[in-house]
Amino acid sequence: MIRIGIVGYGNLGRGVELSIMQNIDTELVGVFTRRNPETIKTLTGAPVYSMDAAMNMKNDIDVMILCGGSATDLIEQSPAMAAHFNIVDSFDTHARIPEHVANVGKQALASGKVAIVSAGWDPGLFSINRLYASAVLPVGNDYTFWGTGISQGHSDAIRRIQGVTDAKQYTIPVEEALNQVRSGSNPTYTTREKHTRVCYVVAEPEANLEKITAEIVNMPNYFSDYDTTVHYITAEELAEKHSGMPHGGFVLRSGTTGVNNETKHIYEFSLKLDSNPEFTASILVAYARAAARLAGEGVSGAKTVLEIAPHYLSAKPIEQLIGELL
Amino acid sequence: MIRIGIVGYGNLGRGVELSIMQNIDTELVGVFTRRNPETIKTLTGAPVYSMDAAMNMKNDIDVMILCGGSATDLIEQSPAMAAHFNIVDSFDTHARIPEHVANVGKQALASGKVAIVSAGWDPGLFSINRLYASAVLPVGNDYTFWGTGISQGHSDAIRRIQGVTDAKQYTIPVEEALNQVRSGSNPTYTTREKHTRVCYVVAEPEANLEKITAEIVNMPNYFSDYDTTVHYITAEELAEKHSGMPHGGFVLRSGTTGVNNETKHIYEFSLKLDSNPEFTASILVAYARAAARLAGEGVSGAKTVLEIAPHYLSAKPIEQLIGELL
Repeated sequence: MIRIGIVGYGNLGRGVELSIMQNIDTELVGVFTRRNPETIKTLTGAPVYSMDAAMNMKNDIDVMILCGGSATDLIEQSPAMAAHFNIVDSFDTHARIPEHVANVGKQALASGKVAIVSAGWDPGLFSINRLYASAVLPVGNDYTFWGTGISQGHSDAIRRIQGVTDAKQYTIPVEEALNQVRSGSNPTYTTREKHTRVCYVVAEPEANLEKITAEIVNMPNYFSDYDTTVHYITAEELAEKHSGMPHGGFVLRSGTTGVNNETKHIYEFSLKLDSNPEFTASILVAYARAAARLAGEGVSGAKTVLEIAPHYLSAKPIEQLIGELL
Repeated sequence: MIRIGIVGYGNLGRGVELSIMQNIDTELVGVFTRRNPETIKTLTGAPVYSMDAAMNMKNDIDVMILCGGSATDLIEQSPAMAAHFNIVDSFDTHARIPEHVANVGKQALASGKVAIVSAGWDPGLFSINRLYASAVLPVGNDYTFWGTGISQGHSDAIRRIQGVTDAKQYTIPVEEALNQVRSGSNPTYTTREKHTRVCYVVAEPEANLEKITAEIVNMPNYFSDYDTTVHYITAEELAEKHSGMPHGGFVLRSGTTGVNNETKHIYEFSLKLDSNPEFTASILVAYARAAARLAGEGVSGAKTVLEIAPHYLSAKPIEQLIGELL
């Protein structure tokens, strides 16, 4: 059994807890939190410890799965924990991944531990597919579409507008653009042309809706580059119809081969997820298995998903995988 | 530069020759054939040697890509060549892969060479996706659909019928079945329900078409389990409209997470290929790069695509891949 600890108990941490139950070779040692452990009740009754307690449990835990946010939690927690544990995180601030790999790797190399970073779906499975696609089709164009899904950052940005009490924002891929790519026509798209944004907003009773709408659709970085639609609904409707956390997306590569690049090929990978955190959590647990195995082989340092052979993710031995999947 | 030799010069060998031209870090040393080398003219003017000559060129070749058929060529050639060279093949007789891995591995271990076997798209990229999908969604169902594409074996079977001068057979996935899987309803399908077969047949002038049609649609193993449509066309139309070698398919996993498996996720991978051999060839060249790198790291023995980390397939260093793709 691979003994796992969870650091941080939000949506992602709860997803990891549930995923551990689905895997025959993983068990949950406990949840570690900066909050008062007594205030937290886990879904499965797993014990909750303070962060400080982790250092006394080094021999009880094979892999720590870090479930905090990238911006403030993981940037510090991942290097700190890699100094003592094999870890897995889903650090997703794309621009800072090289720096994060370096920081975590330094600690993991010194401690002799394995640290798998940025192991979600984007970065993560999407990155893996971008790599396979470009390696097997070196002449071609890449396309990534996101959605249909809730963007937490965009929803938060709307909530900060005066007169707004709550909001959810969906990023939606433009079906026509997707089909153009699939046709092999190699279109050139801006991000705006590939996605639309749809906002469900709960406003205060006296709020100026026109002003709020204008603020949303013209918001730089977040909305001004997109076709954005704003719907005003009640708090009840928001809770009833928009409380899920769906997400997903598409990675495509349109490539050519042949004497004069006359032969077209389309490589497509997609995810349609009813719960972004639960799916991300499932990926983290599969990579926790990989971390435990690599550690068992004497590997140390930071690794990304691009550097880990697929079979390490499976609970089945390689002979069985070759017989069943190849 | 990775110096590559091609063994066998059919559609797949020609595809490898063209793919090598697309990759900045690969070069073609020559084509090796059992035929009289003087009878072969390569697409790029690359030299052609007899198979015997290969043994004198061990120091000139980093990786041999074997481009023969699985049934009679690779089953013998792959172990024989692995005794002297790093090799890559696309051995695709699924049921015999474990045996092939063992045979090739024995020779490769003894010679200290790397042998990557069954590196096409199915087995190959499809297998990799079946592995990732089942590892990140341990509770769920797998679905593989093939096509739209030409099946060489089925086309050959039709050609052997008396009165038939030529034929092409397309395997076509049933769109409705695909969409049912995508909906997350976890349907149970027989192979028949997932695919239809469409045949384009050129018959002799006096042939009994009804009898040929009956022979096709009732042919055991090949057609009797499918809904099969037969079209009779002229040799000219067959040459004009059906001389390509398109193929492709879909790997899906419909999985669930959550407290009571109430959350659905759909993982989907697909390929739409205008030329099956040219795309397979491109995969072989990417894995030839992996073979050369693994050999450089001192690895030896038989490896499948499930055992090779994604980054080995790319010409770019891992630091660049992390920055660009993750």
